[in-house]
Amino acid sequence: MRYLEDLTVGERILTRPAEVTESEILAFAREFDPQPMHVDREAANAGPLGGLSASGWHTAAIVMRLIVDANPLDGAPWLGLGVDELRWPNPVRPGDTITAEIAVLAITQSRSKPSHGIVRTGITVRNQKGEVVMTLSPNLWVARRPL
Amino acid sequence: MRYLEDLTVGERILTRPAEVTESEILAFAREFDPQPMHVDREAANAGPLGGLSASGWHTAAIVMRLIVDANPLDGAPWLGLGVDELRWPNPVRPGDTITAEIAVLAITQSRSKPSHGIVRTGITVRNQKGEVVMTLSPNLWVARRPL
Repeated sequence: MRYLEDLTVGERILTRPAEVTESEILAFAREFDPQPMHVDREAANAGPLGGLSASGWHTAAIVMRLIVDANPLDGAPWLGLGVDELRWPNPVRPGDTITAEIAVLAITQSRSKPSHGIVRTGITVRNQKGEVVMTLSPNLWVARRPL
Repeated sequence: MRYLEDLTVGERILTRPAEVTESEILAFAREFDPQPMHVDREAANAGPLGGLSASGWHTAAIVMRLIVDANPLDGAPWLGLGVDELRWPNPVRPGDTITAEIAVLAITQSRSKPSHGIVRTGITVRNQKGEVVMTLSPNLWVARRPL
């Protein structure tokens, strides 16, 4: 597994792609975000996003799965303390294929717990046309290499 | 439905409570966040969060559902442009009951589109013991009242 010392500012990891199907969009939204723009194709066409689109929280959840599968910390947990600047600049449509790129932006030793550090990351999620559909900056809690 | 002019800085809305069951935690995490701390009770007990806990994205999705059910805009869409300062200060455990409080923090007219404005909100999510399990600050796109 990778420790704090094994990470480098500027390194980038690209995840596999994930197709987002209409049935997945509808199933997630019916459970967690049952607004017309996410669950009703007719109403969505007349709505603010001009067509059916995935809940932003669905996109976030799919990207979490892509990160887990990419395993950027080689078995160490992806332990998010929080996320800054989560944005959805373009909708995710049924049939879109999305891919996430993870960049290491900053590495800071923890002052309160010397065994760990905080890794600030920047994630950019694009669809098959290269349009950015989500960006976010998670802060991770990562163990230092044991002495 | 409520328009930008109908909202007041400082107003607060409390959602209904939602129980988060172990089977829901496991089902969500198996699909979207299959890390040991979310899908494997034994491994979770030995892991960084000291027991099984919900994926932070699961908590966010449940809170989205609570917001939709609370219907704070009275039929107008809850259209998130983005979220700032998403934090998970305490884990959500199997059997926890969580409730969200939505506060209107700021209301700004859109400069690019005079028909709309941006509403900055602050959401605090607490468990049945009153411990804060998630905070976030979504920015919403809200229509002005038609002339």
